[in-house]
Amino acid sequence: VILVNGQLGQALSALDRGLAYGDGVFRTMRAEAGRLLLWSHHYRKLESDCSRLGLPCPAASDLATDIARILSEEPDCVVKIIVTRGQGGRGFGPPVDPEPTRIVASFALPDPPAGCDDHGVHVRWCSMRLAAQPALAGVKHLNRLENVLARGEWSDPAIAEGILCDVRGDVAEGTMSNLFILERDRLVTPALDDCGVKGVQRERLIALAERLCGGCEIGSVSPRRLLAADQVYLVNSVIGAWWVSALDARTWKRCAITPLVQATLRADNA
Amino acid sequence: VILVNGQLGQALSALDRGLAYGDGVFRTMRAEAGRLLLWSHHYRKLESDCSRLGLPCPAASDLATDIARILSEEPDCVVKIIVTRGQGGRGFGPPVDPEPTRIVASFALPDPPAGCDDHGVHVRWCSMRLAAQPALAGVKHLNRLENVLARGEWSDPAIAEGILCDVRGDVAEGTMSNLFILERDRLVTPALDDCGVKGVQRERLIALAERLCGGCEIGSVSPRRLLAADQVYLVNSVIGAWWVSALDARTWKRCAITPLVQATLRADNA
Repeated sequence: VILVNGQLGQALSALDRGLAYGDGVFRTMRAEAGRLLLWSHHYRKLESDCSRLGLPCPAASDLATDIARILSEEPDCVVKIIVTRGQGGRGFGPPVDPEPTRIVASFALPDPPAGCDDHGVHVRWCSMRLAAQPALAGVKHLNRLENVLARGEWSDPAIAEGILCDVRGDVAEGTMSNLFILERDRLVTPALDDCGVKGVQRERLIALAERLCGGCEIGSVSPRRLLAADQVYLVNSVIGAWWVSALDARTWKRCAITPLVQATLRADNA
Repeated sequence: VILVNGQLGQALSALDRGLAYGDGVFRTMRAEAGRLLLWSHHYRKLESDCSRLGLPCPAASDLATDIARILSEEPDCVVKIIVTRGQGGRGFGPPVDPEPTRIVASFALPDPPAGCDDHGVHVRWCSMRLAAQPALAGVKHLNRLENVLARGEWSDPAIAEGILCDVRGDVAEGTMSNLFILERDRLVTPALDDCGVKGVQRERLIALAERLCGGCEIGSVSPRRLLAADQVYLVNSVIGAWWVSALDARTWKRCAITPLVQATLRADNA
């Protein structure tokens, strides 16, 4: 099901600035039993990302109406929201009074890698490096060619995710997920001040870390530091949290705290 | 007039990867008296850009048919071609067998700044810095938020263009144009190995420089070097070449060779 500005149907103007320039932002969320998980977090993040691009954010009530319509047909699905700066003539200059386009669409929930809670997931390093652009860092905008090319680096279905480094060579995130490492009882996650997406689950895990374990450091994670960690987690709003059992030759066993981290991120207590 | 895969009408699927990820490339060209200028250059560049993204390039004959149809209705216009990786499910992974979407559209020719051939154009520095991403540098892809934000830095209609530097602080290009400086009788243009778009008029002016003047150096242009230059040119396929008469407090007079540079880039002898 796809709604474009609240209307059923998948047709979008070929003049939309979302297409022309990637001039917009998006959200990818999980719905279960007719309920969109973490909606308040996602709407806050959507507002914040729109604001970073100087884009008016659609009203929460309009989006909630669209989402309710979609979930009445597909109670368990992935819901994606795209907000663009709307139609524009030719030329990069953003219109003074943009009329944003809002798209709300549902997709089938992906199957998780078989047995991933018990056995973890296998991941790889990507050779793509994320460029440093503080003006866009953290925002889930529509300029995602780095992710597309990085995800194109492998096709082996046994590899669940690829890990991206920044131009300094430090670890940044997965192609579709944020990354945490566990060092004894403390979590560490890359700062993402120059690149990457600060996802909703990343913000949540940072906020919950004091309760779950010994807190969370936001800092630099070199590949060496990652390989020395006791556990590596990949998080997003569709998968919750995966733990990494293999990265090339390095393997990990599941830590005692890992099921709690997973259960916490999969719960919907905002 | 807009043709999507050869069909009249501006509707595009909201599931297109061009919208979702900016996963595609584009061309902006000038048509005069029913003839598209520099078509062979533009098609070669389109092929090259598609190849950089691993995207099948539409056949030249299909594009030529679309363009002929458009120019029969609008003989003098800007023609824009967009090629995307087509529809895709959710997820960054590029489809193994993509069916590209091709969009060909016409726009009104923009009015040049009044008297710009005689009096030059006024430009400004942008504070946006272009991120270093060698994997995408040179390609005219659809990830153009840097250009959108840079063009949003000013609204004064007396300013015709903004100049962007790279992360090292060297000059890269204009928001919608490539940049050359003239030092005595030699042209210099930034290398653009890490950022920016290598446009058709840039390639042409590099190739023609031996005939026009003392050749062209492809190298580093610091802001200081630009300010010390005898002339600054901004080039693209719609404007041809503009010469810069003012950048903040620095002003330039028109050099003797400038009308020849302009006439050369506006001619259509491929």
